[in-house]
Amino acid sequence: MGNINYSETKFLKIKEPTVLKSGKTLPCIDIAYETYGKLNENKDNAILVLHALTGSAHAAYYHKDTNKPGWWDDMIGSGKAFDTDKYFVISSNILGGCYGTTGPASINPETGKQYALDFPVVTIEDIVNVQKKLIDYLGIKKLIVAGGSMGGMQAIEWSIKYPDTVKSTILIATSARLNAQGIAFNAVARNAILTDVNFNNGNYYDKEKTPDSGLSIARMIGHITYLCEEAMYNKFGREFKTTPSFDFGIDFQVESYLAHQGKVFVDRFDANSYLYITKAVDYYDPIKEHGSLEEAFKNTNSRFLVISFSTDWLFTTEQSKQMVNALVKMNKDVSFVELESKCGHDAFLLEFEKQTKIIKSFLKG
Amino acid sequence: MGNINYSETKFLKIKEPTVLKSGKTLPCIDIAYETYGKLNENKDNAILVLHALTGSAHAAYYHKDTNKPGWWDDMIGSGKAFDTDKYFVISSNILGGCYGTTGPASINPETGKQYALDFPVVTIEDIVNVQKKLIDYLGIKKLIVAGGSMGGMQAIEWSIKYPDTVKSTILIATSARLNAQGIAFNAVARNAILTDVNFNNGNYYDKEKTPDSGLSIARMIGHITYLCEEAMYNKFGREFKTTPSFDFGIDFQVESYLAHQGKVFVDRFDANSYLYITKAVDYYDPIKEHGSLEEAFKNTNSRFLVISFSTDWLFTTEQSKQMVNALVKMNKDVSFVELESKCGHDAFLLEFEKQTKIIKSFLKG
Repeated sequence: MGNINYSETKFLKIKEPTVLKSGKTLPCIDIAYETYGKLNENKDNAILVLHALTGSAHAAYYHKDTNKPGWWDDMIGSGKAFDTDKYFVISSNILGGCYGTTGPASINPETGKQYALDFPVVTIEDIVNVQKKLIDYLGIKKLIVAGGSMGGMQAIEWSIKYPDTVKSTILIATSARLNAQGIAFNAVARNAILTDVNFNNGNYYDKEKTPDSGLSIARMIGHITYLCEEAMYNKFGREFKTTPSFDFGIDFQVESYLAHQGKVFVDRFDANSYLYITKAVDYYDPIKEHGSLEEAFKNTNSRFLVISFSTDWLFTTEQSKQMVNALVKMNKDVSFVELESKCGHDAFLLEFEKQTKIIKSFLKG
Repeated sequence: MGNINYSETKFLKIKEPTVLKSGKTLPCIDIAYETYGKLNENKDNAILVLHALTGSAHAAYYHKDTNKPGWWDDMIGSGKAFDTDKYFVISSNILGGCYGTTGPASINPETGKQYALDFPVVTIEDIVNVQKKLIDYLGIKKLIVAGGSMGGMQAIEWSIKYPDTVKSTILIATSARLNAQGIAFNAVARNAILTDVNFNNGNYYDKEKTPDSGLSIARMIGHITYLCEEAMYNKFGREFKTTPSFDFGIDFQVESYLAHQGKVFVDRFDANSYLYITKAVDYYDPIKEHGSLEEAFKNTNSRFLVISFSTDWLFTTEQSKQMVNALVKMNKDVSFVELESKCGHDAFLLEFEKQTKIIKSFLKG
């Protein structure tokens, strides 16, 4: 189906210090980003897509170095939901991440060593403020923002913090704040990393052994929350991998799946980054910050599209409706769709056709 | 409110070998048990209550050694759901447990050392067969069985395996088999134990350091599944313990709760036992064993009471209904109630009043 498009990751260096919500300062920040399509002359055709917990700047096309497609490649491209024939799509790795943007594995210029846990705790607000520097650098004044899950939280914050910049906001499988159960899962995941004997208070970068067990457990917990019982039933049921082992090896297919997910994750992600990013998610709470969701959205000038998935129990339809209700109350232009899906929270990364139809229609409107 | 009743834990020694479902043999088994009330002359007023994952034989009264009430003390006693004025209530620690009945921490008579992982994997069927030896020893021919959660699985197996013995079966917050999501949670919990650096392949009994981190994580995961988002919201919401720490200490009240639950659990439970017992739960599947639930229940001569709780997402009302439907199909005498509760799966240990009313009425019938 046509030529393959290749992408490359570019870097913007922010050389002036950045003050964070915590009051701490980062002396300089690298931002890893990719772009797809062309910025028009008026510089008003940009869409910033915002990645979820463990994503990267590589959202679309095939990466010229790795030859791997981006995490939303089915959504971004010619004729796709985010149509690169029309739009200039931007994706950047979040602050605190481990895919090129400054994070705990980056070198602290003051010590010449990795920050590790000396890296300051960052928030969704900090992450968005750093993205704003990239958007300013690109000379973009008006913007569409779109994100799923934690990416949706960033989109919410964009619409609140930069009302003059954001003209449309697409929130998918997200919520204005994590519920207590979500915090609980993140807390246990972090606990698994923090208590891994190889964690060494975050100073494992030059060590032979890294906190793989803890990070792997964290990832397994994550995957349980990304699926739903229906998805697990459809994928694995109670099927054994072979026969009951009568020992503590891998017995059930679902165990095998989780073990695999844990294993591949430790090869691609930094345990410290997992701590920082889950903490940013836990902390985000514009309701507490602004007094109410209505107050939070009061000044936004954006149109909104809110999409939830019927089997998503991490970011529920009910939570989406809370945002929709607040936006309606504040007389904002908002469209809401709950999509039927058997995929749980993962649906935002899987249900392309359903999302594409709705997003295209919203972007036309 | 009357005198305090005290209980003591007794022990039955099974000196002949017991062949397990795996084909392996245990040379001898101790069974720790308690009884409340008096066995009548006909020996037909007995109720066997069956404990959940981490319970013990100490189900009721105050223990004469520890002065602590039993785990179902609000349900067992004079005038209570299981009325000791009328009934002789029996409770025993399960095979593989760590509260007196033979388990991985018991001495292997062949080596003179703890079994650890040389202990054979046990199943719900094995657990019930061992309980039957206790019931035979007590000279009881007819019996009521009652249990919640994993205790309910044992009650199901009792009704299937010993149709001539069980006259009434009370199944609370349980299911004929764990769903894929439940297996997933148990798998991650076991993984946390198995990968703890102090686990040492189960040989930690004479070591200074034990796999506390892993066991603690396992328990935290368990507690997330015992509560529900509504219960978490009511208990903790998104409240901070004090203020945001901007580090990776305990921030939210829900984190504090989980950390506490993990901490106290390692002082009272054996990590190896946790492996064996969760595995027994994962394996139990009378549907696969008998071809269908109808076929499994075909020969039972018991009446059934099935109780589920509206917010229980570990053992759902839907799963209870599957059992009820199968029992109805097989023309068995079955009563079913879904109780409204905000407590999640934990409700079977908390909602005494609601359960008492229903159980009393069932036992009268």
